[in-house]
Amino acid sequence: MKNLKRLQGLLRRERLDGMVVTCPPDLIFLTDFNQEGFALLVGQRRTWAFVPELLKDQVRRDVPDCRVVAGVSLVAGVAAVMRGEGLRRVGFDPTREIYATGRALEKKGLVPIPGLVLRLRAVKEHKALERVRRACRISAGAFERVRRRIRPGRTERSVALELEEEFRKEGGEGVAFETIVASGPNSALPHHRSCERLLKSQEPVVMDFGSLFQFYRSDMTRTLFLGKSPPPLYRRVYRIVERAQREGIRRLRAGVSAGEVDRGSRDTIQRQGYGSYFIHSTGHGVGLEIHEPPRLGPGSKERLRAGMVVTVEPGIYLPGRFGVRLEDTLLVTAQGSRRLTQP
Amino acid sequence: MKNLKRLQGLLRRERLDGMVVTCPPDLIFLTDFNQEGFALLVGQRRTWAFVPELLKDQVRRDVPDCRVVAGVSLVAGVAAVMRGEGLRRVGFDPTREIYATGRALEKKGLVPIPGLVLRLRAVKEHKALERVRRACRISAGAFERVRRRIRPGRTERSVALELEEEFRKEGGEGVAFETIVASGPNSALPHHRSCERLLKSQEPVVMDFGSLFQFYRSDMTRTLFLGKSPPPLYRRVYRIVERAQREGIRRLRAGVSAGEVDRGSRDTIQRQGYGSYFIHSTGHGVGLEIHEPPRLGPGSKERLRAGMVVTVEPGIYLPGRFGVRLEDTLLVTAQGSRRLTQP
Repeated sequence: MKNLKRLQGLLRRERLDGMVVTCPPDLIFLTDFNQEGFALLVGQRRTWAFVPELLKDQVRRDVPDCRVVAGVSLVAGVAAVMRGEGLRRVGFDPTREIYATGRALEKKGLVPIPGLVLRLRAVKEHKALERVRRACRISAGAFERVRRRIRPGRTERSVALELEEEFRKEGGEGVAFETIVASGPNSALPHHRSCERLLKSQEPVVMDFGSLFQFYRSDMTRTLFLGKSPPPLYRRVYRIVERAQREGIRRLRAGVSAGEVDRGSRDTIQRQGYGSYFIHSTGHGVGLEIHEPPRLGPGSKERLRAGMVVTVEPGIYLPGRFGVRLEDTLLVTAQGSRRLTQP
Repeated sequence: MKNLKRLQGLLRRERLDGMVVTCPPDLIFLTDFNQEGFALLVGQRRTWAFVPELLKDQVRRDVPDCRVVAGVSLVAGVAAVMRGEGLRRVGFDPTREIYATGRALEKKGLVPIPGLVLRLRAVKEHKALERVRRACRISAGAFERVRRRIRPGRTERSVALELEEEFRKEGGEGVAFETIVASGPNSALPHHRSCERLLKSQEPVVMDFGSLFQFYRSDMTRTLFLGKSPPPLYRRVYRIVERAQREGIRRLRAGVSAGEVDRGSRDTIQRQGYGSYFIHSTGHGVGLEIHEPPRLGPGSKERLRAGMVVTVEPGIYLPGRFGVRLEDTLLVTAQGSRRLTQP
């Protein structure tokens, strides 16, 4: 429950008497537990867990350091604790809370305080980092094995399923997000859904995938070309994306702004005349969610910190023709970064 | 896009000029499409899709009958369409929308209208029903094969993984929720997380599982006893739960209130003196979400309608000792119900 203590420290610094937490990744971050109906009121010293009757014994067993309140609604339960304990300034997260619940909490005197838990989640502590690292290793290893068996005539979906099968063999617990295998013109759609299309010779395949390990995720993309001699345009685009990724990664370091990394990748692509075909951010944080802060996009002022885990994933998409994207998940360090997506 | 038309009909009846839809299962229901950042404004006649730049081409290809608006924020985009098209009364769902977004939409003049799409989702149209049916068949078939291989010495987790493997072999696309295999005293926790505990002889195993097929889900629970002669208490409890499920199912019929079905199961358990050990509702709707309306719990006044798909799942949990739960997913019909969770 180290993260619970970290949040309690943050509450004291922010002069908050408590914080209501209801969103699944925040709950898992704090307690390694989540089930429908489970919610927390974290005070500066004590924590209350609100649960439906059917979770009572389980939460008592699996979530230490909490007072378990069963069978009352979250809003009524929070209000009662606030009265009983004299908590005055209690927050909820307006960027995560459901509108109706947020309104009801406001009526009980709570205040919207955005992103408090997310801020802690952005810098990975030891346990989180070990899990992300493992998820990254699982997916990179799976790719190494599957890539040798990718050939014309297979469907996108069969390749996606095989990759997911390899995740499980390596101890992965599922997928971090829907596996993307996008072949030929489909590769020009960054978030194509793998379908029954047959892979063809002399076409590229974009594969974007990640595995899940103890709630944590990985994210990586590789672009392959099926066939012996890729046409010059493909080779050119691939090289630009490769260079763009390298330029982004080169700027990755604690203290640098997230927008600076984006600029590294984006300028490289722009200078080659493909700026308008790079239609997304350069990267994002990865952890309990596949997309979490920081955002590595144009103008993002957020300072990177050591212990953040982010992707660098520039791409060029030529509509109706093909696309190339290259992505790794990396750990930000004081000196630079370490690539986690390797076998 | 039949469901989009159904919603537009409902808008006309409710005298709403439009409805903002952002929650994933509602979006899938309406368009069979969902990706981060995709949202709809459904008008009485036209529909607008708001997407990030990277989804533009994909939404144009995969979501017909929509005007695609790329690269503007949802709130600004909705406000612009409302002005341009003269839409006045436009809703958002306060039970699904994020607080901050709901507040911003309110400032643009939108009004909270709860559960409009959910109401449509509760009665399964042909396509939805076929998918749920398939998900049910997949999980029931998988169970039949796995049950023969369950024996003392295996871990809970290995049985859960094997079940999930069988789902995939049958064309399932994943799990409807985290598979529960709860053995011995763990079976007394309704939502136990499968762990490394070894199954033992002369102990019960509760298995609660479901598969995913084209976004739709199934839900079923079986309780087995490992060993030749279950002790009298287990036999007694099992028989009561069996009878309680039968009594619930017997009352299932279009026109009956959801609470009436709960009463059927609950009274049976209460009469045998185990009322306080039945610590959850008797059932719930199943579809794009594993728990959706109607709720089959005490006092639930909602009338069941033909085409609803619900679970009936009474259980008795003796803390520290063992539990028994039996669950099927059923289709409500005019005459009664049909069990979908069979191979």
